[in-house]
Amino acid sequence: MPSPRYDVLAIGNAIVDIIARSEEDFLLREKLTKGSMRLIDAAEAERLYARMGPAIEVSGGSAGNTAVGVASFGGRAAFTGKVANDTLGELYRHDMTASGVHFSSQALDSDQPTARSLILITPDGERTMNTYLGACQMLAPDDIDADTVAAAFVTYFEGYLWDPPQAKEAFRRAAAIAHDAGRLVSLTLSDPFCVDRYRSEFVELIRDRTIDILFANDSELRSLCETADLNTAISTLQADCRLAVVTLGPEGALVIGPDGVEKVAATPVDTVVDTTGAGDLFAAGFLFGLARDLPLREAARLGTIAAAEVISHIGARPAVSLADLARQAGYDLWSNSSKSA
Amino acid sequence: MPSPRYDVLAIGNAIVDIIARSEEDFLLREKLTKGSMRLIDAAEAERLYARMGPAIEVSGGSAGNTAVGVASFGGRAAFTGKVANDTLGELYRHDMTASGVHFSSQALDSDQPTARSLILITPDGERTMNTYLGACQMLAPDDIDADTVAAAFVTYFEGYLWDPPQAKEAFRRAAAIAHDAGRLVSLTLSDPFCVDRYRSEFVELIRDRTIDILFANDSELRSLCETADLNTAISTLQADCRLAVVTLGPEGALVIGPDGVEKVAATPVDTVVDTTGAGDLFAAGFLFGLARDLPLREAARLGTIAAAEVISHIGARPAVSLADLARQAGYDLWSNSSKSA
Repeated sequence: MPSPRYDVLAIGNAIVDIIARSEEDFLLREKLTKGSMRLIDAAEAERLYARMGPAIEVSGGSAGNTAVGVASFGGRAAFTGKVANDTLGELYRHDMTASGVHFSSQALDSDQPTARSLILITPDGERTMNTYLGACQMLAPDDIDADTVAAAFVTYFEGYLWDPPQAKEAFRRAAAIAHDAGRLVSLTLSDPFCVDRYRSEFVELIRDRTIDILFANDSELRSLCETADLNTAISTLQADCRLAVVTLGPEGALVIGPDGVEKVAATPVDTVVDTTGAGDLFAAGFLFGLARDLPLREAARLGTIAAAEVISHIGARPAVSLADLARQAGYDLWSNSSKSA
Repeated sequence: MPSPRYDVLAIGNAIVDIIARSEEDFLLREKLTKGSMRLIDAAEAERLYARMGPAIEVSGGSAGNTAVGVASFGGRAAFTGKVANDTLGELYRHDMTASGVHFSSQALDSDQPTARSLILITPDGERTMNTYLGACQMLAPDDIDADTVAAAFVTYFEGYLWDPPQAKEAFRRAAAIAHDAGRLVSLTLSDPFCVDRYRSEFVELIRDRTIDILFANDSELRSLCETADLNTAISTLQADCRLAVVTLGPEGALVIGPDGVEKVAATPVDTVVDTTGAGDLFAAGFLFGLARDLPLREAARLGTIAAAEVISHIGARPAVSLADLARQAGYDLWSNSSKSA
């Protein structure tokens, strides 16, 4: 098998984040569930935007953030996602390309605008997301580039892709291509409400080994396993899943692999400013580490380094070079390219 | 004379900032003069954007930042500036309105897009600006709302307004309305290169007392007076100008008033992240202080508080409430409205 041309191909919704600071009261008045992502239509997007505070615009999207994280580590990253032929779409493409991510998806030529997520950051650093999917609704199997999938050490998907109608077909097509090429397939569960919407499909994908590497945080995992008890959920995962990582916020992460469960501490952060992107960047570090042949524990440590960086400022993409942070932490991962799966 | 309905009406170019981190090398390769603002056309904006790093988008514009600063202090602010009927124009209007600034300027209905400034932040926190004026080119005397000007304690202009062809006529119209209503007129020199372009006009406006309050930093002042010696320049200002403030970066500011020159120290900052907006926010604090009847020295101190806040993060608008910062510094300015000029 040829050695991979990309460390990670990330496939997900291409979304521009519109981020405003917000008091807790505003969430209560608007009946928003703190920490969650809800889908909204164009009218609700307009209504909420008119009510929320002054904002900044930053390219985001869960899998997109992961791709940028991999590139920031000095890895070779590609991204597949659907933007429109509009201003936000141009910004999104620029930011991906300027971050060093290969992004060749064609823009959508219709009146669906580029997706945006209205993100409210409360004083505790939590983010509450209100996403209008727009052009992302149109991601379809034809958007999967077989050559890129076959050339990636791992193809990584966000669970949010189950919301757009044809995107799960795109996922199945990509997963089949990846496995035929001897590559890995990874999924993040994205959000407990997302798990609620698609639980049986996710469970099936895990059990039938379509998913090689699963990412979840504790609430997503509990939602998946329909239990309040984390240990029960972990036992279920151990039985069903080849490799899983459960992120626990300030408690670090659990790596659930063939040889048991390992706990990895979080990298300390002075002040948590905005948790948006914490899971996305953890996945970037972990997958980059695996692609560069690190032991699971060390790959998870890279994940915690990336997550700590991104929660210490506004926005879900790194503000400094993750490769520099990894070097400072003693890693030397840039002499060789990624291993074969 | 009726008491003012607004503390500050700011008139300037309505610009969305597109901000990217940049190494010094990039400025050298692109032959950009660090710390300056240059005007670029649409083709150069496209070329440079394609070469610069991943960016965030934030509403900006010098006078617009000042208006938002006044509102953040709890003052009543209005803004006049030209945006287009496009995505960036909608973002700009939203951010102004959501910041509590009265912004009723009609959007331009033509194919000129909303202005953008490609801003490169070097590791020392300096910003280098490349501005495509687009719709701002069309600001004209008809855009001046006489009622708003007559109702503002002070009408504040940016020197950058001399670049668009008809905007200086808009300035003259507004200044005449303000003085007829017994209000104040203020100008910031904006940039040493801007002063170079319009020196004789600026000097005339100061000498004939069209300008009541002048803002300049040291390099703008030296450019205005065509001298390398700051003391010579200050003596010139004292002779020609009713009230002037010269900002000196980390050295604080000089208030040059009828009773002589007073030096005010800068408010200390841990790390200078991005100097964009320092002068704009200084002006916000100073003008708000004057409108609320503070002595010159105290008004300048409010200016240093606002400037210190805005240089401690990316973007040219406050990230926290300036009213809270002023309260913490012992000010109580919110019981009464602004005095008459």
